[in-house]
Amino acid sequence: MRTYAEYLRIVEDALSGQLASLGEIPALLYEAMNYSLSAGGKRLRPVLLLAACETLGGDVSEALPFACALEMIHTYSLIHDDLPAMDNDDLRRGRPTSHKVYGEGMAILAGDGLLSAAAELMLRAAVAMGDLRGVRAAEAIMRRAGVTGMVAGQVMDVTGEGSEPTPDKVDYIHRHKTADLLTAPIEAGFLLAGADEGQVALGCEYGLRLGLAFQMVDDLLDVEGETALLGKTTGKDAAVGKLTWVAVHGIDKTRTDAAEQVRLAIAALKNLPGETNFLKTLAQSTLDRVQ
Amino acid sequence: MRTYAEYLRIVEDALSGQLASLGEIPALLYEAMNYSLSAGGKRLRPVLLLAACETLGGDVSEALPFACALEMIHTYSLIHDDLPAMDNDDLRRGRPTSHKVYGEGMAILAGDGLLSAAAELMLRAAVAMGDLRGVRAAEAIMRRAGVTGMVAGQVMDVTGEGSEPTPDKVDYIHRHKTADLLTAPIEAGFLLAGADEGQVALGCEYGLRLGLAFQMVDDLLDVEGETALLGKTTGKDAAVGKLTWVAVHGIDKTRTDAAEQVRLAIAALKNLPGETNFLKTLAQSTLDRVQ
Repeated sequence: MRTYAEYLRIVEDALSGQLASLGEIPALLYEAMNYSLSAGGKRLRPVLLLAACETLGGDVSEALPFACALEMIHTYSLIHDDLPAMDNDDLRRGRPTSHKVYGEGMAILAGDGLLSAAAELMLRAAVAMGDLRGVRAAEAIMRRAGVTGMVAGQVMDVTGEGSEPTPDKVDYIHRHKTADLLTAPIEAGFLLAGADEGQVALGCEYGLRLGLAFQMVDDLLDVEGETALLGKTTGKDAAVGKLTWVAVHGIDKTRTDAAEQVRLAIAALKNLPGETNFLKTLAQSTLDRVQ
Repeated sequence: MRTYAEYLRIVEDALSGQLASLGEIPALLYEAMNYSLSAGGKRLRPVLLLAACETLGGDVSEALPFACALEMIHTYSLIHDDLPAMDNDDLRRGRPTSHKVYGEGMAILAGDGLLSAAAELMLRAAVAMGDLRGVRAAEAIMRRAGVTGMVAGQVMDVTGEGSEPTPDKVDYIHRHKTADLLTAPIEAGFLLAGADEGQVALGCEYGLRLGLAFQMVDDLLDVEGETALLGKTTGKDAAVGKLTWVAVHGIDKTRTDAAEQVRLAIAALKNLPGETNFLKTLAQSTLDRVQ
């Protein structure tokens, strides 16, 4: 097993090249896609995919197109999410958002392009692998990114804004908008490593718990980060009436719920073969952000 | 072989069900996607896919998820294309466009959802098939719909508006924005039928020529349809400075070029086994629209 920094380097070194490998892309389209794709960030999803694959003895180089595809999907969702018709954000990771730089039309197309490129990369890799592991991994990623997964969560998030926050609604949004795209790399990574059904189920349980903890911590940071920084007790989520865990359950319960989800994530790793320390440490570190 | 009407019925009967088969989709998202998907039209692309598959002895029921996926991709491209930031159209096939009914945010998400659903459907079908035919067919469709195909053509179309029309630019837009998504069903249908490399190449040549003829005729209709109907000699394309074949080559040459492309399409069918009459007749009928 490698360190987070090592996986991160593998992903960073590969992203633009994987995109360019698809062939003759119009220069402006490539530039717009790569602008958002190269904006950095933790690369949590592709790192998780590589680590999950290697945890069960899979091959990192074989998993790399799938890891890059997943980051492209994450990036497309951010570009579309930032559009004026959605969250209307001007800044992302300290840089102007895609539509501020390239205009709304190109931002929509850059998002469409990244989603298409992700599917194409995975399919090309699956053809080259010659067995069904790649197809199954691609299916898992597209399912969790799609209309019963991330897109479903996004729809409920957008249409839920300003509505009465209920535990069910927030749970649905967290499971689909966030946890599905953190479960995808575990499911796909395990499938690429040739895991059996029981192992995949445990991996998905880990991903779900990690994803829920991750989003609870994000909700806390939106409140507490703003509090520390701006001296007010509500952040952007509350201002626009977002359905968050904190809005439904309050700060204290969100904190204990996040810790419980991390405990469940780690518990799911117990019956897995291989060196699961990387995944365990990563789950634990989720809580560091609010401690 | 069946008739166009028979293939059309198979597609119409399957579309909504294929979408719903993906699982628990939020009601509003399903409604928005299905609103555009069920708006009718010729269903040229899915019909072509089924017919191409059957021409080479393939199984229509096996090809159906791929045919429906292709129509979902076509539909997503129309929804995004109609957005205010793109072509800003209020009507499509006589009904209000998606963003007029559901708002821009939902229209963007409905498009994202349809593209995701298309990839997911094909991958699920490919897993069920158990060999590589499905993966290869899905790869062909996503490649031709993606950043070196339809999305590339769309980018050049959007950024080219109002610029100097040159033969190269118009040829690029026609090849990618239109012909790639008419070649995709032939390539995928042939791959699903287990065609060899030479047969696939002939099918792609047919699709390219059919697609170019189809777009030339569309360009003619935009001019001549408007002329007959409104008594003016320029249609919407010219009004917004679209790069069309007519704008570059004039009406007479566009007419003869379209006929020549149909001739080339039919010539490509000559060395194929199976009953190619359906594909031949379909190519010929392209010209009927302007005769």
